[in-house]
Amino acid sequence: MDNDSQLRPTVLVIFGGGGDLAWRKLVPALFSLQLGQNLPASFALRAIDRVQTNEESLRERFRDGVTRFGRDGPPPEADWNRFAAIVTYQQSDFDDPAAYVALRDYLNAHDAQWNARANWVFYMATPPKLFGVIARRLGEAGLSRDPDRSRIVVEKPLGCDLESARQLNRVLADNFSEPQIFRIDHYLGKETVQNILAFRFANLLFEPLWNRRYVDHVTITVAEEIGVEHRGGYYDRAGALRDMVQNHLLQLLCLVTMEPPVSFDAEEIRNKKVDVLHAVRPIAHHDVHEFAARGQYAEGWVKGEHVCGYRSEEGVSPQSTTETFAALKLFVDNWRWQGVPFYLRTGKRLMRFVSEISIRFRAVPHQAFPIEAALDWQPARLVIRIQPDEGIVLRFQAKQPGGRMHLRPVDMRFNYADTFQRASPDAYETLLADAMRNDATLFIRADQVEAAWSLLTPVLDVWAAVPPSDFPNYAAGTWGPETAEVLIAQDGRTWLQPTSPHTAVR
Amino acid sequence: MDNDSQLRPTVLVIFGGGGDLAWRKLVPALFSLQLGQNLPASFALRAIDRVQTNEESLRERFRDGVTRFGRDGPPPEADWNRFAAIVTYQQSDFDDPAAYVALRDYLNAHDAQWNARANWVFYMATPPKLFGVIARRLGEAGLSRDPDRSRIVVEKPLGCDLESARQLNRVLADNFSEPQIFRIDHYLGKETVQNILAFRFANLLFEPLWNRRYVDHVTITVAEEIGVEHRGGYYDRAGALRDMVQNHLLQLLCLVTMEPPVSFDAEEIRNKKVDVLHAVRPIAHHDVHEFAARGQYAEGWVKGEHVCGYRSEEGVSPQSTTETFAALKLFVDNWRWQGVPFYLRTGKRLMRFVSEISIRFRAVPHQAFPIEAALDWQPARLVIRIQPDEGIVLRFQAKQPGGRMHLRPVDMRFNYADTFQRASPDAYETLLADAMRNDATLFIRADQVEAAWSLLTPVLDVWAAVPPSDFPNYAAGTWGPETAEVLIAQDGRTWLQPTSPHTAVR
Repeated sequence: MDNDSQLRPTVLVIFGGGGDLAWRKLVPALFSLQLGQNLPASFALRAIDRVQTNEESLRERFRDGVTRFGRDGPPPEADWNRFAAIVTYQQSDFDDPAAYVALRDYLNAHDAQWNARANWVFYMATPPKLFGVIARRLGEAGLSRDPDRSRIVVEKPLGCDLESARQLNRVLADNFSEPQIFRIDHYLGKETVQNILAFRFANLLFEPLWNRRYVDHVTITVAEEIGVEHRGGYYDRAGALRDMVQNHLLQLLCLVTMEPPVSFDAEEIRNKKVDVLHAVRPIAHHDVHEFAARGQYAEGWVKGEHVCGYRSEEGVSPQSTTETFAALKLFVDNWRWQGVPFYLRTGKRLMRFVSEISIRFRAVPHQAFPIEAALDWQPARLVIRIQPDEGIVLRFQAKQPGGRMHLRPVDMRFNYADTFQRASPDAYETLLADAMRNDATLFIRADQVEAAWSLLTPVLDVWAAVPPSDFPNYAAGTWGPETAEVLIAQDGRTWLQPTSPHTAVR
Repeated sequence: MDNDSQLRPTVLVIFGGGGDLAWRKLVPALFSLQLGQNLPASFALRAIDRVQTNEESLRERFRDGVTRFGRDGPPPEADWNRFAAIVTYQQSDFDDPAAYVALRDYLNAHDAQWNARANWVFYMATPPKLFGVIARRLGEAGLSRDPDRSRIVVEKPLGCDLESARQLNRVLADNFSEPQIFRIDHYLGKETVQNILAFRFANLLFEPLWNRRYVDHVTITVAEEIGVEHRGGYYDRAGALRDMVQNHLLQLLCLVTMEPPVSFDAEEIRNKKVDVLHAVRPIAHHDVHEFAARGQYAEGWVKGEHVCGYRSEEGVSPQSTTETFAALKLFVDNWRWQGVPFYLRTGKRLMRFVSEISIRFRAVPHQAFPIEAALDWQPARLVIRIQPDEGIVLRFQAKQPGGRMHLRPVDMRFNYADTFQRASPDAYETLLADAMRNDATLFIRADQVEAAWSLLTPVLDVWAAVPPSDFPNYAAGTWGPETAEVLIAQDGRTWLQPTSPHTAVR
């Protein structure tokens, strides 16, 4: 971490600043950072886009974004005016060298104005095909070569397979050194995700249990209720495996399984995480049917509302074979996790919006209780709830009050809402602040991206080579296709239905 | 356990049925058992006492007891009438052989009436000096010699030192075999205490941590806000060590530290518990000052009310040297617990009414977090709250939401009130039902009583030989004397102040 730079003057340049990401996520996050006094005292925001607009309109759009998507509702007038004053707009074509000359002049002017050597954060909020172009143009304009002041932030999709990911990494590396490249996985900015490491490594409690001796299996569920919304065009080329598993689910897997770090140095954390990806047992092509399951939603009911099937969504081919659900069984072939299956699943139009990691412990080695006491007995389970109802639930057996010994599962709960009594920062606040202060701990390194793609390559290959004959194979509003149940049932297990830090045991 | 006998016809004979225990505890518990249909279908209650009263008055007194002390408030008329109908009174002197002839006639009449061989439960609710007399008279009358139908229930004090305890055990053993003798420690009937074994042995979760490798130390606190109340005469001869430590606190120690039982057989559980008492390192006479601390309360303020000092209490000598507070440091010299100190404390007129067991885990072996992240760091702590606010709290470190990694303690909570949504049975309900169904698991065996007294003998000796020069040494409404702080502070530790399953971290 680079503490001193936290307060260094900074210019944030958003390429694609007229688009959705800036409006919905980046600007609301920046505004919240300003409210919390977490922006550098000298700070400027430069939006660059092709769209014809002016600063006044752009500021209005940003204010609208803050009002609609910000943590704190409509911005107070004075605060907003202060924020709006640092926003400027540059209308440019991303491939036009003149744009970068203009940008350089703007940046130099700020250095002069602040009498400082400001940090430059170039945020790629454009379609991914432009990442390479912009990186190259930044390089040509001499804006990328100062590792201590210049960095680039890119966001998913980071390629659509191993080859394209490598190519993107190469283009970025041609112009920026790896420590200058901040690849966002916004899941890593979530408080509950960051807390996984605190939970594991700031407490002696669970780490001794965190291995094959005590853990029976782990499930990671990232379930959405929504369909593809306005992203049909993109999504139909991607699918659940690329859109969710390659990044979010594998990152969660890394955090749950990584070895204890020596320190919280960014490289150390990322080394330990990539170690896991390298330890995951490759899925052979002929095993894909046994280790992976896919699904696509048909029409159905979500929360009492009838919704259309995936193939009827806007921007989606009526014959689409894209998966909107993916499940994997993985093994981490190392000393700690040998033989413990990790079941990952994600999908759209599932029964509930919920992301959680569920660690199921083994049965007790000896059941000393009388049989009739243990009829409702279950192995203990620890659930890390990522969202919503953020928290941790430990389900264990207790004696049911009453005359006889009767064991039943009860929950011990920790939840953010009750404990901290204030909203957590949005993931983008955390990640933008970290990028500005040059802390790469929560960002994805090139080798992680490639290792993750490597892992999925056989599945992508087989799924592409063998089109699904059964799509659509799950109704919207269910927990996904039968094949996902079979994936886990063949091991004599079942998906653990999500619990909640706020509700009673079911 | 003897399942069949659960429903066997039973006569419960309460010696001292006109006294406080029957009025406050036994009859309200029996009435609750009846309401819950947990009494045998054929059941009769015989109260025997010296006091001159009649059945009508006694029933009224019992109804008053149920109304004031019962779990469910004033008894419904029909239920009460059904209960009252099975209550009879026998006015007798406890040492009068004729009383036992009359009792035998009464019992035989019930056998005839029920056409069954009823169970007899003889409950000693008299002053302890009468236990021996009654046991002998029961024996002489031939009422003790049928192990399968006759049992005797005795309650603390079970002696006032090792010698008197042995003598009581002998008198009981002269007339009843050990399996017929049910020694009550009402703490063992509490749901939260019974749950300790479920928590430890029905879950794989904590048992692997439950040893010297992970546990730094354990504190057991049984704190009362009340003074000696109406018990000054008895208490002034007993003191905190005899009244609380010898039984309740040592029993809690046994439950927390015992090895996993092979089964829940009564002998097996009690074997494992007594193993602990035998493993506790004896305190040498010359070490008593280092391993034990005593106190006596002076006047002070409890919950905003001024209360008198112990020496001004009714029935207490104005020069009394009896301790109203006792603290011990114990070691359990076995493979599992070697070197882990157990700090026990109990007292009257302390700051809060609370009984809890607090297990403090060791520090993490390697602190990977940056120093500034760990300023509020604490080792994890598991608190088993016996009463009030029954539950379990796991205090661990989490990341405080916000831009930087900052660790702070948070609580994961399980509490009975929210989880079970109904009142737990009173300890006496559980214990009376167990005695009636011949399940001795929760009762104290002769060897346990003697082992506990053995352990305390050096402390009793030294305290008797060296009168305290500093009494009274703590103000009512505090956490006890300075010497108790020194006892633990000399090890570089402090008493962990009670938390609550319902309130936030302090």
